[in-house]
Amino acid sequence: MKRTVPLSAGNGGEENNELIRKVFYKAFKNDILLKSEDAAVLDLEASKIAMSTDSFTVTPLFFPGGDIGKLAVCGTCNDIAMMGAKPKYLTVGFIIEEGFDLRELEKIARSMKKELELNGAAVVSGDTKVMPKGTIDKLIINTSGIGELEYEGISSNNISQEDTILVSRDIGAHGATIFTAREGIELQSNLQSDCNSLYPTVKALIDAGIKITALRDATRGGVSAVLNEWAKQSDICIEVEEESIPVSPEVFGVCEMLGFEPTMLANEGTFCLAIKNEDASRALEILKQFNQNATIIGKVTNTHKQRVILNSSYGTKRFLDTPTGELLPRIC
Amino acid sequence: MKRTVPLSAGNGGEENNELIRKVFYKAFKNDILLKSEDAAVLDLEASKIAMSTDSFTVTPLFFPGGDIGKLAVCGTCNDIAMMGAKPKYLTVGFIIEEGFDLRELEKIARSMKKELELNGAAVVSGDTKVMPKGTIDKLIINTSGIGELEYEGISSNNISQEDTILVSRDIGAHGATIFTAREGIELQSNLQSDCNSLYPTVKALIDAGIKITALRDATRGGVSAVLNEWAKQSDICIEVEEESIPVSPEVFGVCEMLGFEPTMLANEGTFCLAIKNEDASRALEILKQFNQNATIIGKVTNTHKQRVILNSSYGTKRFLDTPTGELLPRIC
Repeated sequence: MKRTVPLSAGNGGEENNELIRKVFYKAFKNDILLKSEDAAVLDLEASKIAMSTDSFTVTPLFFPGGDIGKLAVCGTCNDIAMMGAKPKYLTVGFIIEEGFDLRELEKIARSMKKELELNGAAVVSGDTKVMPKGTIDKLIINTSGIGELEYEGISSNNISQEDTILVSRDIGAHGATIFTAREGIELQSNLQSDCNSLYPTVKALIDAGIKITALRDATRGGVSAVLNEWAKQSDICIEVEEESIPVSPEVFGVCEMLGFEPTMLANEGTFCLAIKNEDASRALEILKQFNQNATIIGKVTNTHKQRVILNSSYGTKRFLDTPTGELLPRIC
Repeated sequence: MKRTVPLSAGNGGEENNELIRKVFYKAFKNDILLKSEDAAVLDLEASKIAMSTDSFTVTPLFFPGGDIGKLAVCGTCNDIAMMGAKPKYLTVGFIIEEGFDLRELEKIARSMKKELELNGAAVVSGDTKVMPKGTIDKLIINTSGIGELEYEGISSNNISQEDTILVSRDIGAHGATIFTAREGIELQSNLQSDCNSLYPTVKALIDAGIKITALRDATRGGVSAVLNEWAKQSDICIEVEEESIPVSPEVFGVCEMLGFEPTMLANEGTFCLAIKNEDASRALEILKQFNQNATIIGKVTNTHKQRVILNSSYGTKRFLDTPTGELLPRIC
């Protein structure tokens, strides 16, 4: 018989406790969580921390390269890592539709556990709500977290002509994967989401003494959203060599077929970097240890402030704009 | 024309930025948030913090005494206050159904702003997702937060016969209010939710030097869930004088009519306290400055370990059990 989550598992009473013990404590077990207090009490070593939150609503819940659980841990840990901090303590809020398959929930919790370990992070507080059938589509996970700063001064507001722009790997894999999975398009390819924890890569850059100005993972809105935000926030022009932007043949194929721009596709384990010019090639070497497709894609100029310019190999130029319209909903 | 939230407002692009700027930044504006980084970078004065999370799915969204926004700020700030900490930094995740009324969203954001000010807390990071119409019922808000510890050692695992059990006001108002609002029952009464920020009350207890063993707000599952958790966690018996439990005539009326137990109804601004015996009457005086209905309701014994006993005025005894079954879904 298929075991499912009953509505009563969100009641704050006996059934609620049972779900928490059997599924979530099993995966996330640690001394702080087991105290079952209203809030976790934590000791911090650093006085500077990074704090972030994200809610995840991806459909399908399981996709090549990951699932909503992996995504939920990577998403918040990556946001923390992008500020030069080590992800340390996470909270998790599950919002579950009545009747959700308990085995799938356990599988998702196990994915989260695995990804938490990669980050050296722990879930210290959680919340479970169960909503009546039909009032929510399957499952939403919110993760929030804090990390201790290991590198100070990273900011999207300080990028200048002293910086070089890099990307950590080929782009658009998450968006292309979700789209093809959702539409039931069978591809004879190895296309899978880039969903991945970025803290190890960031730590390698910090340990090597690389001068980092800004980091940002290119999630919803893709690389084009990140570069446009940077151009606006730092009041600069970013010029990108279109040919240098790494796109895998699989993602390129999906884009050709469906009329997408790779730069507007979501990523979940790919980040943009603004690195001091003198350290750019050393940073690239380090990035390549994690992914061979890491590339220097552009530079900062004052040609058109607050805009991003794509230079083609034919010598033409066009603006790369912030994505508008509906793009792909429920992607992360 | 009714302005609504379009699906494109969750795209990570232009429309997403517009919603964030116009609605959320307007309400939550502060220097940290305006930096628009992947994560907020925060300076902490204390090395010990409390951290908690909660997701809110109440229906109806607006009810006598509050709305989902007030609830979302109170809920997480109260969990933090219950550990003897001052709520300081919050993250907010909005999950919005496509087509949601923008004016209602603005009203909710304003409620949050007001309640944040009462706590002296700030929203430092946020996330907005918009889900296609029909895949979520209106709106879910997740809040997570951290606070700096002002009183150390509060724990539900250390309650003993040296402690007296108190409740901060009359119980069950939130549950009774939501139920009558939902069922369209028109009551000729002043019944309204107890939804409220508890940090000011906790601070008054701390400032007066009261010896606090445990605090817990009696949300889902009500006072009966809290007392049963305490009895189990501290391996004690809690004996409560049934007559001493404060219940307003309005809540009593709803319970009589619908067959509810007041002790199982949810609260959103009512907490249980375990206070060292010698400080109990002094604590009561302080609680009464905030609500005249604060009461000493019971004591700790070793009659039946891990159980809660209700003593009636007729000399009979019965167990007060942890609530089971569906209770009232989507209450907070």
